[in-house]
Amino acid sequence: MTFAMNRLYHVPLSPFCRKVRLTLAEKKIEVELVEERYWDPSPDFLRRNPAGKVPVLRLEGRVLSESQAICEHLEETVPQPPLMPRDADTRYEVRRLCAWFDDKFHDEVTSKLLYERVNKKLMGQGYPDSKNVKFGSNRIKYHLDYMAWLLDQRRWLAGDVMTLADFTAAAHLSCLDYISDVDWNRHAVVKDWYAKIKSRPAFRPLLADQVPGFPQPAHYADLDF
Amino acid sequence: MTFAMNRLYHVPLSPFCRKVRLTLAEKKIEVELVEERYWDPSPDFLRRNPAGKVPVLRLEGRVLSESQAICEHLEETVPQPPLMPRDADTRYEVRRLCAWFDDKFHDEVTSKLLYERVNKKLMGQGYPDSKNVKFGSNRIKYHLDYMAWLLDQRRWLAGDVMTLADFTAAAHLSCLDYISDVDWNRHAVVKDWYAKIKSRPAFRPLLADQVPGFPQPAHYADLDF
Repeated sequence: MTFAMNRLYHVPLSPFCRKVRLTLAEKKIEVELVEERYWDPSPDFLRRNPAGKVPVLRLEGRVLSESQAICEHLEETVPQPPLMPRDADTRYEVRRLCAWFDDKFHDEVTSKLLYERVNKKLMGQGYPDSKNVKFGSNRIKYHLDYMAWLLDQRRWLAGDVMTLADFTAAAHLSCLDYISDVDWNRHAVVKDWYAKIKSRPAFRPLLADQVPGFPQPAHYADLDF
Repeated sequence: MTFAMNRLYHVPLSPFCRKVRLTLAEKKIEVELVEERYWDPSPDFLRRNPAGKVPVLRLEGRVLSESQAICEHLEETVPQPPLMPRDADTRYEVRRLCAWFDDKFHDEVTSKLLYERVNKKLMGQGYPDSKNVKFGSNRIKYHLDYMAWLLDQRRWLAGDVMTLADFTAAAHLSCLDYISDVDWNRHAVVKDWYAKIKSRPAFRPLLADQVPGFPQPAHYADLDF
């Protein structure tokens, strides 16, 4: 499905934007990507989203914000291929895990590593706080262990099919992988899961992202990492 | 519908717990309320929810966490009365507003006023940080203005029927009203909206909450506030 004037206002290393990009690509909804320096927002941007955050999706003339609300909306309006299972119990599990990554993982890991190392520099807010970096580096181990525990019982994070929960987790981990903050050797089952996601066509544009001042490490785009 | 052994682990002045309590009550799902000092969690509690947060709902032998995932699950499994509209556009708007209150309002207001004034004391973490309190007191005005702007165009926050968005907003505002931090005179339309929600039978248990060390102000439970 193609909408000529669809646009996603985003930043490349935002897990919330990546989650929406993956969902759009998987459902073959074409959008023009527009980078938005949301920390220095233009009045135009604030008109589009009073929350002043990315992602913001302009879709068929409407303006949508909040990544989970956007993805649920895309799932309801463009159901193929499905990113939510049909039974209520697994749907709950998908939403629980999306919240786990966007809330708990974000607070404990993404904000402590990515925001300290990258966003602070981009926003001109100085150097990483080493206490935060240390905290995040420690906590990511616990989250990788939790993922391994889930993936020992299931093919994908929420069950036997790939869902929005996998994209949400991969959105966070891929940002952290860009700054080499994921120890893929910790659990083979987590590495295998990421390799499967990484090789999807929907993932390719994320692997092409380049952030000025932060050169892409060699393993980042390598499908055989 | 009655499930004898259903339990909600909660704290009285948590907006996330209140959102689930309102949803359960509106759908007439009876639960036993169990107060959980989540900041000093028992090993039993952490077994129930590795995220170490409330609310945690034990429902028909399953253990559910993450307030939005719980409420969506209740909506899908106990559809009457509906708290989500049927058309995709309004469903998006409900979810956007739930995220607005649970994320932006929470960060800018609830965490700056309620957590500073109440949670810190309950958790033995000392006195409110006056900078945070000042910030929250300032930002709540902006959010009340935004609600008034929405309610000038709509009967309820997301459209013409009451939805989970109204319960989410009311969950936050009712906690703040317990500590007299909401200026209801700022917008008549917001006060009228809250009066409608407050008079629902589902709201009654929230109005009976008592928190040791924080006596309930007279207006809090008064339907004619």
